[in-house]
This record gives sequence, structure tokens and C-alpha cells, in this order.
Amino acid sequence: MTVNRIIQLLRTGQPNETVTVQGWVRTKRELKEFTFVEINDGSALANLQVVLNPDLSDYETILKQLNTGTSVQISGVLVESPAKGQRIELKASDVKIYGDADAETYPLQKKRHSFEFLRTIGHLRARTNTLGAVFRVRNACAAAVHEFFQERGFLWVHTPIITSSDCEGAGEMFSVTNFKLKDIPLTESQQVDYSQDFFGKPAYLTVSGQLEAEIMAMAFGNVYTFGPTFRAENSNTSRHLAEFWMIEPEMAFCDLEGDMDLAEAFLKHIFKSVLEQCPEDMEFFNERIDKSVLETAHNIINNEFGRITYTEAIAILEKADKKFEYPVSWGLDLQSEHERYLAEEYFKKPVIVTDYPKDIKAFYMRLNEDGKTVRAMDVLAPKIGEIVGGSQREERLDLLENRMKTLGINPEELWWYLELRKYGTVPHAGFGLGFDRVVQFMTGMGNIRDVIPFPRAPQTIEF
Amino acid sequence: MTVNRIIQLLRTGQPNETVTVQGWVRTKRELKEFTFVEINDGSALANLQVVLNPDLSDYETILKQLNTGTSVQISGVLVESPAKGQRIELKASDVKIYGDADAETYPLQKKRHSFEFLRTIGHLRARTNTLGAVFRVRNACAAAVHEFFQERGFLWVHTPIITSSDCEGAGEMFSVTNFKLKDIPLTESQQVDYSQDFFGKPAYLTVSGQLEAEIMAMAFGNVYTFGPTFRAENSNTSRHLAEFWMIEPEMAFCDLEGDMDLAEAFLKHIFKSVLEQCPEDMEFFNERIDKSVLETAHNIINNEFGRITYTEAIAILEKADKKFEYPVSWGLDLQSEHERYLAEEYFKKPVIVTDYPKDIKAFYMRLNEDGKTVRAMDVLAPKIGEIVGGSQREERLDLLENRMKTLGINPEELWWYLELRKYGTVPHAGFGLGFDRVVQFMTGMGNIRDVIPFPRAPQTIEF
Repeated sequence: MTVNRIIQLLRTGQPNETVTVQGWVRTKRELKEFTFVEINDGSALANLQVVLNPDLSDYETILKQLNTGTSVQISGVLVESPAKGQRIELKASDVKIYGDADAETYPLQKKRHSFEFLRTIGHLRARTNTLGAVFRVRNACAAAVHEFFQERGFLWVHTPIITSSDCEGAGEMFSVTNFKLKDIPLTESQQVDYSQDFFGKPAYLTVSGQLEAEIMAMAFGNVYTFGPTFRAENSNTSRHLAEFWMIEPEMAFCDLEGDMDLAEAFLKHIFKSVLEQCPEDMEFFNERIDKSVLETAHNIINNEFGRITYTEAIAILEKADKKFEYPVSWGLDLQSEHERYLAEEYFKKPVIVTDYPKDIKAFYMRLNEDGKTVRAMDVLAPKIGEIVGGSQREERLDLLENRMKTLGINPEELWWYLELRKYGTVPHAGFGLGFDRVVQFMTGMGNIRDVIPFPRAPQTIEF
Repeated sequence: MTVNRIIQLLRTGQPNETVTVQGWVRTKRELKEFTFVEINDGSALANLQVVLNPDLSDYETILKQLNTGTSVQISGVLVESPAKGQRIELKASDVKIYGDADAETYPLQKKRHSFEFLRTIGHLRARTNTLGAVFRVRNACAAAVHEFFQERGFLWVHTPIITSSDCEGAGEMFSVTNFKLKDIPLTESQQVDYSQDFFGKPAYLTVSGQLEAEIMAMAFGNVYTFGPTFRAENSNTSRHLAEFWMIEPEMAFCDLEGDMDLAEAFLKHIFKSVLEQCPEDMEFFNERIDKSVLETAHNIINNEFGRITYTEAIAILEKADKKFEYPVSWGLDLQSEHERYLAEEYFKKPVIVTDYPKDIKAFYMRLNEDGKTVRAMDVLAPKIGEIVGGSQREERLDLLENRMKTLGINPEELWWYLELRKYGTVPHAGFGLGFDRVVQFMTGMGNIRDVIPFPRAPQTIEF
């Protein structure tokens, strides 16, 4: 027996077609003559309307069990729907019930639930319209990421999750250990005896796969990571997760211009691909969640990104006819309000800001001739702010060593990273982008905890 | 300037084409009249042979710098190669050197290195023939995984890496904490005061995303995970990693037959796709690493998998004209030698063994009518042994609760997993497959540490 996915029936199903669907009851509406049941199978935002006539065998028994949440298989014939807003409906000839859902206790009754409440039922919330749409978009976006890079010959590389390197300075790291926490072995000098731990030294959850991606780029040219990364920051905000997915392409023989070109093409591709793959879901977000998400998407897709240096950006901000909360001054980092002013009000489209002061950027970024700025870039988008951060990397051994020394980074910890500059070093560049944030911006969801199936945050580890 | 990837030139480059390549010198051979340099850019196993003539400007200077490992950009014209084994070569007209590699210290001189030694230079080993081929195959296989599931409408779901659930019994788990290990806060009763830790309770690295994938399947029908999983087992073997990538599809409205069908189609797809995408790399493995890898791949692709029950398998093994090290008896688990006998000698093709005794399988597998066996399946392949393990899940609440009680699993820990059986439960099934092991078997590599870029194992966390 072939089972039909509801999204296909809604898009291309024809009257008189005999079909079978499997899914969950969303609502039931009993009329005198017959009963409407809305079925959802997760393939689409919309439900398939099913008409149950009293001539159906066991009509009364079936009706009693068809509560919201009940799992069913229904066969029948598609007919034109007289109702507004739907092309077809299913006239049921056979209904099989797999599992019911007690109307008294099933939490997802037909009413609006707050996203806060839905987070407490993470095992059920994907069955709602909004979360269902989020996870379809998330999948489409993730698939578009792989498609983009694979088409261009980039290798997906699996960089390590557990790492011994804590010197990247991207934030606080979680420790990973095989010790019983109640019983940590100490050395004679009362230090933790890591030699007895699984890895023989302190181990952490990675904050970035970039340094290892550079290794792989030095062998294959173009590579990308797409995997989980972690921050142990106690940030209880709507934009922070302790566990999130990151994408980090890295290109050998590439400078910052090539890096910007890739970032622009990449963002256009993923937004375009999601609009094509999930038009109904994106319409839904635009109507119900944030009326600007389609505009934001089209703005990214249809505009050539602006490109200015940090120094130019500061000049623009200083001249701006606008009062900012945070000060604007060469040497200070751009705040979210500055980034949004540049993208939303000044450029009215995405803009890439380059060549930031070295002191506000990471140690591995390539120093410019001026000795003050580095070849960093941030992509700022309207309504979003910073969406991508990248740089050309410092490929010159002596300059990198100096920079690490200045910042107090132990070169022995990163001996292998330095050796990449010693043996066949090449100009190279890459960027990072937080996948969950992209999905958040794409869908307009207010809280990042609602775009990942099982969010991890302070005091938050259920499911 | 367009840069050409060497794999494209080797496959389709034509004489008289003007091209530019970027890569690293593998070898240099100085002859009286001219010099041969072999360039590799990571796109292909084979190098591009470049001919440098003395009329090149700075010929002598360039020659001195072109050591093994030097990074270069070379432009010129393709010409037919008089040499055996290569169709074309590149006559250089312009050579740009990015970074040299000191012939005295660069570890990858032209000679064979042991894989053990190469593991100590994880930042360079991807530049060797074998590891380069491994990581190309790994990428092609990973891309084939996504392709397979996306084409079939499965959603890629990101299940959590950090989890509070330790009851799955799949092995020892790493602890994740934000405590300083030197200074673990204790409660008055001298227990670890987890309320002060980041998540407010004990946290671990996941051993499987299956239970959460089941949540998502109950909303979307078909889903899959593809992400890192962890085991803190002190297994210093050639087949174990502490951190490895796993693929776990889960299908709602699916029984064990559907699960077996999916596993068979999936394995055929990934092996076929890698043979198509990386024919040169696979030939290389077959010649240099394991002379059976192509045969194994074709065996998987071209045969309909056998299907027998565990009980039938035991009967076959008991009748086998072969002395096994481990005993064969109904109720005991199959050992590797038994699995290989079944696949290699008896069936001579992949075989799926189903319906194992419940006592040797996980708590979530569906109990058969006999009350003794569960709807488990293992796919066994010649030369490989078990490659996939899966099951139909127990979707009946009372039976699942009973099973958990018997095994001492606290139902409160898995309240949400049980509620999936309470609200719209459906028959569902899935399987898991260790991605690194598949790559190991596909390539014939002896040690699994050589198929993942930066292996994590006991005392092993470098890079």
C-alpha cells in the first residue's frame, strides 16, 4: 500500500484519486449529516480535511476516538472541496485508529499556547503549527547549506567536539570528564590529577571548529564544518543557547574578497532555497510571527551587499542623525544598534563591514599594512544585525607568533596551528555563522529556544 | 582569474587549454633539460604533473623553493603527456610561490609513513595519498547520507548533544560540567550540589539521539539524525572511538519490514554513491589497503539482502561445519565470528537477522507475541559483520512500562518518552549506524582512528 504525504496531495492531488494518509487528528467538527476531521502528517503546515459520512462502518465508535492528537490511517477518494481556502478534501472510506489521545489530558487542545508553555512539552510541541513550520524550515535550510557547499566542491569535515584547546577565547567552555564529580582524584600537590582522566588532560566542549578546519583546508582547499558547538556562558537571553549548530567554511588560496563573495552567495542561496522549499511555512511566519520576514529574505536575496571598512562605518555613524545608546568611536566595537542602523537605515540592505581594529578581534586574523586593523568582516543584515563573522587568517608565521605572544597565548598549545604556517602556508579565509540564529531570523521567532528541537541553556536540559 | 581544480583537469582537461592550479608540491624531479613537479590540490588522489622549462623566469630561484610541501600557484598550458598513466600535463608559464616547506624538517618527505606516525601529525596527514582519499570518501559518503534521506522527505533533526538522561544503557557516558573540577561544591550531606551547576542537574554527552528522534517522528513522520555521539568506554581498539558520528533514521507508521527495506536501500545507496563520486579513491583502497573493498561494495549493492530470524540463525550456526570460539546457543548474543560466518560463508551476501531474545536487546524494542523475542534487526555484511542495528519500537504504553520496570529504569526519568505512547502512539521503527565504521569498512582502513580527522580515544585528544 502506498501512503501519500499530505503536502503532495494539497499541492497536486486530483479529484477521484484514491489515496491513503497517515497522521494525527488536529481537530474534529461534528455536524448533523457528517463529520469533518483535519489530519496533519507533519509534511505540511496545512491539514487535509477529511469528510466522514455516517455510512462508514463503525462510524459512531470511530467518531468517539477521533480526538485531537489521535493517530490514524485514512483511505478514501479525493474530491473537490466546496470550502474556502482548500482545493481538495478526502472522502473517507476506511479509517484505522492507531492510538488515541485523551481529550482531558492531552495538552495540545485547540487553543493558542504560549511558546513558554510549549517549551515545557518539548516532546509534543513539534505537533503545533508554528513549531512544525520552524522545524521544516530548519531542515530545508540545513539541506540548503550542504547543497551549497557540495555543489562547489567543498568537503564537509567533522572537526572534534571534545577538545583540549581552551585558548580560542570565544567564551567559557564546558568541561568534559570521566571522573565521578564526587570523587575527583588529586595529585600530591592537591591539583586535579588529569592523568587519571579519560583523555589524560583537561578536556572541553568545542566553541569552534575553525582551527581544525584550517588544517583540512591546507590539504583539500575548500572545506566546511556543520556541527554542534558550545558556550558555558550564563546568558539567559532570547538569542543565546549553550549548545548550538555552527557552519564554518574555510578556503585555502583565498583572501577577504573571496570570503565576502562566498558569504554573500551563501546567504542568498539559503534564503532563496528555503523560500522555494517551504513557501507555505514562510507565508505563515510572515502572517503570524513577524510581518517583515519575507521582506528581510527578499532584501538579502535581491540586493548586492554593500561593502565598507570599519573606519568608514565609524564615520557614517558619527555623522548619523540619530542618538545611540552606546558610544561610537574608532577602536570600540560596533553594538547591535550601530549594526542595525548601518544595514536598515543607511544602506537599507545587507552590508559587509571589514578591517576592524585588531584589538577587538581574534588573534588569528590577518594584520593589515597599517598595523592597526585586521582583515575581519562582519555581514550585517536589516532586522538581523550581524549574521556572519569571518576573516582572512594570518598566514605569516612571525606575525602570528607575535600576536599570540602579545595576547598571552601559549604557542606550545597551538604548535600544530603554527606549523600550518611553517609548511606550505597559503593565504586563507573563512567565516562562521550560527545556524540556529539564521533559522531564528529567517522565521522571525522571538526566542532562539523555539528554533532548535531541544534547547540547552542555563537550568534547561529537559528531554 | 579562474582557478582550475586538478580533478577536473585530469578528467576532462584538453591540450592547449590555458589553466591555473593552486596546490602543494608532492615531488620534484630535476632533469638536465627541465624539471617535473607533481602538484596536488586535495581534489584528487592523482597529482597534476607540471613541466618547468629553464626559459621560465627565475627558473633557478623557483626550483630551489619547490620542495615537497611548498604551496604554489601555477599557470600554463595543458599538453598531452608522453608519460605512462597520465593523459595530460601542465607546461608552466608562471609560478607563484606562497609558502615553502623546509626539506630538513617537513615530516612528509617522499617515503612511506606508518599510520601510527601519521596520527602524531594530524595537522599534516590529510596531505598524504591515503588520508586524502579517506576524507574525500568520508565527505562523499556523508553527502550521500543527506541526499538519500532528503530525497525521501525525511527531516534532518538536531537532537541534543548534552543530555540529562543516563538511562539508555548504551555504555558509559562522559560528564559535562561548568564546575571547576578542583572545587566541586557539595551539599550539606556531602553530595555534589548539582543545583549550582550550569544545567542544575547531572549532564552527560549523548550516546544516541534515538529517543529524541522518536519525538520528532511522532510529529513529522520520517526523520533522521546525523551528528556526534560519545562513549566513555576505555576501549583501546581499532574499532572504537570515544567521539563518533552516528546516523539514526526514525519512521512513524512503520514496522520492522519497512525498517529493513529502508536499511537495505540506504546501504546500497551510500556504497553506490561513493563508487560513483570517488572511483579513483576506491580503486586506490582496493589496490593498496584492502583488496576486497570493491568486492564488498559490489556485494552490498548487487544482492538482495537475506532475511532470517535470530532463531533460524542459531539453527544455522549450530549445524555449521565450523568450530567457533564463542558458544552458540539460543539466548546468547551473536559474536562477530558468528555474524561473519552467516554473511560471508552461509549467505555470501548481506543478511538481516531479526527477532532477537529480548534479554539481549534494549528496553524500547517491541515485544513479539511469543513474549520472548523482540522486533530487533541487525544487518550483517560480508567482511564487515554488523553494520546496522535497529528495531521496531514498543509503542504500547503498558508493555513499555512493564519492560522498564523489569530493567529498573525509572519511568519518571523518561516521562516524555512514555507520553509519546499515551498521545497518538503509532507503530514506528528506526535504526542506527556508526558513520565512522561505515567509512572504515568502505575504505578497508585497519584503524578507525584513520577515518576521522581528529580521533578521540583514551589518552588521545591532540589537535
